[in-house]
Amino acid sequence: MRDRNIMLTPGPTPLPPQVLEAMSRPLFHHRTEKFGRLFAQVISDMKWVYRTSGSVLMMTSSGTGAMESAVVNLLSPGDATLVCTTGVFGDRFVAIHKAYGLAPEVLPSEWGRAVDPDALRRTLKGKPGLKAVFFQHTDTSTGVLNDIKTLARIVREESGALVVVDSVSGLACEPLETDAWGLDAVLTGSQKGLMNAPGLGFAAVGERARKASDEAKLPRFNFDWRLMQKSLADRETPWTPAISIVAGQAAALQLLRAEGMENVWKRHVGLAAHARRLLQEKLGLPFYAKDPANILTGVVLPQGVDGVKLLADILREDGISIAGGQLGLKGKIFRLAHMGYISKADIDAGVDALARRLVGAKA
Amino acid sequence: MRDRNIMLTPGPTPLPPQVLEAMSRPLFHHRTEKFGRLFAQVISDMKWVYRTSGSVLMMTSSGTGAMESAVVNLLSPGDATLVCTTGVFGDRFVAIHKAYGLAPEVLPSEWGRAVDPDALRRTLKGKPGLKAVFFQHTDTSTGVLNDIKTLARIVREESGALVVVDSVSGLACEPLETDAWGLDAVLTGSQKGLMNAPGLGFAAVGERARKASDEAKLPRFNFDWRLMQKSLADRETPWTPAISIVAGQAAALQLLRAEGMENVWKRHVGLAAHARRLLQEKLGLPFYAKDPANILTGVVLPQGVDGVKLLADILREDGISIAGGQLGLKGKIFRLAHMGYISKADIDAGVDALARRLVGAKA
Repeated sequence: MRDRNIMLTPGPTPLPPQVLEAMSRPLFHHRTEKFGRLFAQVISDMKWVYRTSGSVLMMTSSGTGAMESAVVNLLSPGDATLVCTTGVFGDRFVAIHKAYGLAPEVLPSEWGRAVDPDALRRTLKGKPGLKAVFFQHTDTSTGVLNDIKTLARIVREESGALVVVDSVSGLACEPLETDAWGLDAVLTGSQKGLMNAPGLGFAAVGERARKASDEAKLPRFNFDWRLMQKSLADRETPWTPAISIVAGQAAALQLLRAEGMENVWKRHVGLAAHARRLLQEKLGLPFYAKDPANILTGVVLPQGVDGVKLLADILREDGISIAGGQLGLKGKIFRLAHMGYISKADIDAGVDALARRLVGAKA
Repeated sequence: MRDRNIMLTPGPTPLPPQVLEAMSRPLFHHRTEKFGRLFAQVISDMKWVYRTSGSVLMMTSSGTGAMESAVVNLLSPGDATLVCTTGVFGDRFVAIHKAYGLAPEVLPSEWGRAVDPDALRRTLKGKPGLKAVFFQHTDTSTGVLNDIKTLARIVREESGALVVVDSVSGLACEPLETDAWGLDAVLTGSQKGLMNAPGLGFAAVGERARKASDEAKLPRFNFDWRLMQKSLADRETPWTPAISIVAGQAAALQLLRAEGMENVWKRHVGLAAHARRLLQEKLGLPFYAKDPANILTGVVLPQGVDGVKLLADILREDGISIAGGQLGLKGKIFRLAHMGYISKADIDAGVDALARRLVGAKA
């Protein structure tokens, strides 16, 4: 088992052989026709994934960098914003705001619950000057899916605020319609539904967000969307990109294109159903999220079970990575992911490893 | 020739097969003992490369991101700084300052010339409140090498300012002694002397710089050295790292370790001598830099030769990437790199491709 390496983690997810092969090819320079073609293809395919005719910008960074890029490109000192939090990644949006001297209003949801549309509407009433509202599409810390279509509609109805969505773990897993739902900026990372290695962040930037980025006063350089937008016309990036990961992304997007976006979403419905049926049958433990996404299943461990040790044992003895709970949930839940290139066979192995230990522990 | 791909560009440079192999292995998760070991090895090896017993921090970004990290972690609004420019990358330090609302004093050198130690000393006189002085170790736009040892000594003698060095294209090519020369922060990228794919930035952060980063008031989140430093204790990064490129870096560092740092420097002396001998013999054109580094040779093209077309032809017909001039030098010079994993055979092929066209053009 020592060499087995099954990843059931909510990002990074396993890489298709085509992606590994693309990254193993000799490097080439990024100020060339060859890179320009590759980059243009990635951007074009990303527009297809995002369902947008607006701009898609690429940066060499984690998903967190892409999240920061939205804050610094859309906002100015003193701007009023609202962050709807459903877990760790909503809190990260708040932390980024604070790092830049902004004090966002926060609409927290009970952990495990999605943002309540009525609560959002009440919060938005009487706040005409709000500059932007920030959401997670899915939050991997809680496994929650937010109803972005409805939430964005409510923002439009009640406010002139920009709608900013962190879909780092949602894009190419759960349905998302950037243009049809009126989303102004949607952020993602390469290492989840996009089935690539970590290292690239993307931002879909609509016309209203592009205008806002021209006027925003927060400081930025590496993450300046205006520079990225300008370079895009020459099929370049402002700074040297992670060329190997761009090549990997092109290969992964080709796989998604061949599958078709509706089928990608259906695949995640199928994986989630498979995982939950199996978890129910073999473990019979309660699921954590009340409003679950198809990207992962959070499972509440029985009292007395040391979740940290359990997952460490499974990784060491079975070569399977399963994520634990974060912050207050540490040791109390596990999070079994079923997203991206994770297969039913991977899930079977993971649930089997859990059952062998937990069913014994319960007895 | 169509599939030939020789890179004589000053970053990215070609990848050793061991690096490509490392990047082609199945991905694994970054919150694991396995990644912790890999990351700790990379940091330990980077300290060896930097010649420092201080901290080395790693970020998923281009070298530009590492440069920005130094500005935002060391400075506060209103801080007085000096940027010594020897080409495009000095100008980039200035641009980053301006993006964050700072107005650095600039000590420009004539393009092709290194920073003049006497001019630096004169400029520093009577400026007791200077917070930091910024240098390039080597500037790939001009091919210049700065005498960082002497320049850093002068800063120490004349000022309490921090010494910040962009060694993105110099580290593991030209001698650099972070601790012995009293350098407070040294920045680099993975894709040049470090023989890895682009995607990682590093910062060597000495004790004075670490203290400064605790007190600095410029906003930062993704590039916050304090968060990186804190995660380092757990052999982690604050955000998901570009795991594949970290694996590539470990493989490349193993090669550098086996070679020995003094031998790495000697290799670049040898490559530069070889390239210049050959260029002199086959082309007989003047070299651009008056104070040249061993990383590349800039060559002035004869009047009437379209440098842009020349290099495009060589890339298309011979599969060899050679860089042209930047900004005011566009079309007027070419820059043949001899750094990192570039071999003598690569250089031979590049000079041959140039000679076949230029000797004809001269006749």
